[in-house]
Amino acid sequence: MNSKLQELKDRWREVHDLHSAGGVLFWDQATYMPPGGGPARGRQSALLRRLAHEKTTDPAIGHLLDDLRPYEESLPYDHDDAALLRVARRNYERAVKVPASFVAEFSTHRAETFQVWAKARPANDFGAVRPYLEKSLELTQRFAGYFAPFEHIADPLIEGADYGMKVSLLRPLFAELRAQLVPIVQAITSQAPADDSCLHRHFPEAGQWAFGLDVARQIGYDFQRGRLDKTHHPFTIGFSPGDVRITTRVNEDSLAPALFGTIHESGHALYEQGVRPQYEATPLQRGTSSGVHESQSRLWENVVGRSRGFWQFYFRKLQAVFPAQLGQVPLDEFYRAINRVAPSLIRVEADEVTYNLHVMIRFDLELQMLEGKLAVRDLPEAWRARYRADLGGAPPDDKDGVMQDVHWYNGNIGGGFQGYTLGNILSASFYETALKAHPEIPAAIASGHFSTLLSWLRENIHQHGSKFTAAELVERVTGGPLRIEPYIRYLRTKYGELYRL
Amino acid sequence: MNSKLQELKDRWREVHDLHSAGGVLFWDQATYMPPGGGPARGRQSALLRRLAHEKTTDPAIGHLLDDLRPYEESLPYDHDDAALLRVARRNYERAVKVPASFVAEFSTHRAETFQVWAKARPANDFGAVRPYLEKSLELTQRFAGYFAPFEHIADPLIEGADYGMKVSLLRPLFAELRAQLVPIVQAITSQAPADDSCLHRHFPEAGQWAFGLDVARQIGYDFQRGRLDKTHHPFTIGFSPGDVRITTRVNEDSLAPALFGTIHESGHALYEQGVRPQYEATPLQRGTSSGVHESQSRLWENVVGRSRGFWQFYFRKLQAVFPAQLGQVPLDEFYRAINRVAPSLIRVEADEVTYNLHVMIRFDLELQMLEGKLAVRDLPEAWRARYRADLGGAPPDDKDGVMQDVHWYNGNIGGGFQGYTLGNILSASFYETALKAHPEIPAAIASGHFSTLLSWLRENIHQHGSKFTAAELVERVTGGPLRIEPYIRYLRTKYGELYRL
Repeated sequence: MNSKLQELKDRWREVHDLHSAGGVLFWDQATYMPPGGGPARGRQSALLRRLAHEKTTDPAIGHLLDDLRPYEESLPYDHDDAALLRVARRNYERAVKVPASFVAEFSTHRAETFQVWAKARPANDFGAVRPYLEKSLELTQRFAGYFAPFEHIADPLIEGADYGMKVSLLRPLFAELRAQLVPIVQAITSQAPADDSCLHRHFPEAGQWAFGLDVARQIGYDFQRGRLDKTHHPFTIGFSPGDVRITTRVNEDSLAPALFGTIHESGHALYEQGVRPQYEATPLQRGTSSGVHESQSRLWENVVGRSRGFWQFYFRKLQAVFPAQLGQVPLDEFYRAINRVAPSLIRVEADEVTYNLHVMIRFDLELQMLEGKLAVRDLPEAWRARYRADLGGAPPDDKDGVMQDVHWYNGNIGGGFQGYTLGNILSASFYETALKAHPEIPAAIASGHFSTLLSWLRENIHQHGSKFTAAELVERVTGGPLRIEPYIRYLRTKYGELYRL
Repeated sequence: MNSKLQELKDRWREVHDLHSAGGVLFWDQATYMPPGGGPARGRQSALLRRLAHEKTTDPAIGHLLDDLRPYEESLPYDHDDAALLRVARRNYERAVKVPASFVAEFSTHRAETFQVWAKARPANDFGAVRPYLEKSLELTQRFAGYFAPFEHIADPLIEGADYGMKVSLLRPLFAELRAQLVPIVQAITSQAPADDSCLHRHFPEAGQWAFGLDVARQIGYDFQRGRLDKTHHPFTIGFSPGDVRITTRVNEDSLAPALFGTIHESGHALYEQGVRPQYEATPLQRGTSSGVHESQSRLWENVVGRSRGFWQFYFRKLQAVFPAQLGQVPLDEFYRAINRVAPSLIRVEADEVTYNLHVMIRFDLELQMLEGKLAVRDLPEAWRARYRADLGGAPPDDKDGVMQDVHWYNGNIGGGFQGYTLGNILSASFYETALKAHPEIPAAIASGHFSTLLSWLRENIHQHGSKFTAAELVERVTGGPLRIEPYIRYLRTKYGELYRL
């Protein structure tokens, strides 16, 4: 048995290393690659993806999994080998459903679409990208078709990012959340908006950069096993537990994007840096789902990074970096500014309360597209209608409307957005549980100490990688299923105090 | 025929793209990779190399080459397809001689040796790296053995870098060069050495960096298709004609390394950026040999970059960057400083006249090792003896002696050094030929215009990539075989004037 398990691991390591090599190519493309490198890079990346797919779907893996089934069944559910075989089997069965020729076709189309979008967006030219998006929709429907039968056509897409989730679970969850959120938003927006002008002064890049590095290091991101670079669309990417990189963008006229963006990506990276080293290059190495991943980034960005305690420690340091801009600003004004709630048009700039409404708009629209009930040509108007209804105003153009997020233009129609809201819900749930075990965490944060919280996350979440599904992990950590109550409690407490609700 | 040629090209493109992907991994490792990324990176790189080797030696390529032989023979020698098939055949026949298992073993050993050397060198601990070097020597001898019969055991190694070259050609060439060089060195060193203290003041990195970028741009390096980054051991690397990157290191207490290093690497990169776009991802894409490559880097670094005309244009600009350090230095003093000739112990810091003596020491010692006449344990003493004899002094330790160059510790014993001297010889030869066609080049350089020279190099050398062998190229360009006379003339003229010989 051991030699078969070893062979499976060896084969998986190659798949993993090909993906990691492709990851380095992606990272380079998004950070340092000169413009002339584009065409060859597309070819190099497509080749690595194809080779990885060939190795992932090699029938030899299926035979090994068959041969190893008795061993797997002889093991306790929580045994590492059992988990490895379970996840390897799940990945294999998913991968072999999709023909290699389709993978290649979609991959090429996806790269083309991204290029077209990257030019069309600044030009506000939805017409240019529309045929590409139509083809993406058609390809996505074909992709989902390989997983038939299903309850909902989006389920196979959602399952790829959040295993165990599906439309019939998400719809009631989101409806319940929405019912709770809307009154909070209404109560807040009936008041005058908070003054956040202190965030919109001129903040030279060098200072923002140094401060972001300092915060990332202090919360526990290990720069011996990572680095921070600039990019247009920030992301976290790991090639091994020893090399997990984060990226950010800096706007000199706005303090929040780089600051909270860096903390957000650090949260993702802490997860990947915290996976047990034994899982390296196995199917267990990565974070278990999009939702759990986002719970880590949002926990650090919002629950910690936008807390009063955090800034009781950090605001004086920030003032020291930007004395002319912030020296005269009281802590309370800054705290209100970074937690200003106001309906807006851009998801990535949204506050924590309205953020989920942005996600739900996208989630609903993509379900309608996948169901064939909404044509791509009607998407811009549907977008505007939903923004008017849910957020009280429509974007003036498609650039900041239907073209604002990369997801759909990256081939992800369906499966890409639910994780954000699941992550928000889970961030509060995990934090509440951590506080039960360690009530001293808020005081520690207020004195700049994050190790108790990080250790708890490492112990309870990070180290497991993909060993447990999101649902299993939530059950193990919180003692029950996914529930929105902790998140609502968190929002009510924080914003109740801020807005005297 | 066309479909077979296309299949061959498709297969070659994959090999090329795997090598390029591996190149990106190497570049990243040498520039930005955090320390923790090392172990996984070794694995990723080895996998890409193995896959490339598998694809290079796929018997299907041999069959295609057989099938295409009549087509190749029907074409004029200079036809692009003929050249492509010729070079593809040469590469294939070379690659299939070496078993895949050997490639893997050597590749792993090479990576280990490099790691050990990187630690042992600063610790001056030759004993630590000695067993690795002994194994490298043994592996290199085995490698050469796959190409038996040969005139000299180093010939297969030399041929890998400088096709058409071999020990029996290089020995008399180097002996003749040496006979010409030694009297020049003696005549110069009988005088008081030039004062180069103006190069050893404090030059802050930012200024060095900006000036290097400016010079690279001005001589024609295209930053839309490349970039400059910092590294420990500078190199040029191309992933496609659209992405050819250079690296440099900056020493704030010494102006020359970054400045001339950047020009040197720009010279390599101009070659790769200038290859005909049609050759992309074919066996013709790269520069044709180590010697011709080095001719381009040395031409720009020395023949141009250390010429009086170049500094007639640039010195005022450099003074403006470093007014406190250089503002009072006369141009003539600076020109003498950058062309100071003095026997020294470190090859990469050597002047143009003594540089080849360093190369010949290494060349001779590695031939002796490969022949089995010099044991690795006796290498440090043999090194010191040769330095005493040829350069008048021995290094005080192995760090700056036998351990100074990465080559031997990177698995390159044999084949790695001759290109430097061939490059020096060719740089003068090519430049002399360019001047016959365009006598106005020196005046253009003195007014900061490099396009006539670059266009001539593009037209006569760069565009051809590997289409012609080095010998063919030299014949086409200069009208005759490789000769040392132009190089000797160049040195005599320049240093005759400088030292009033």
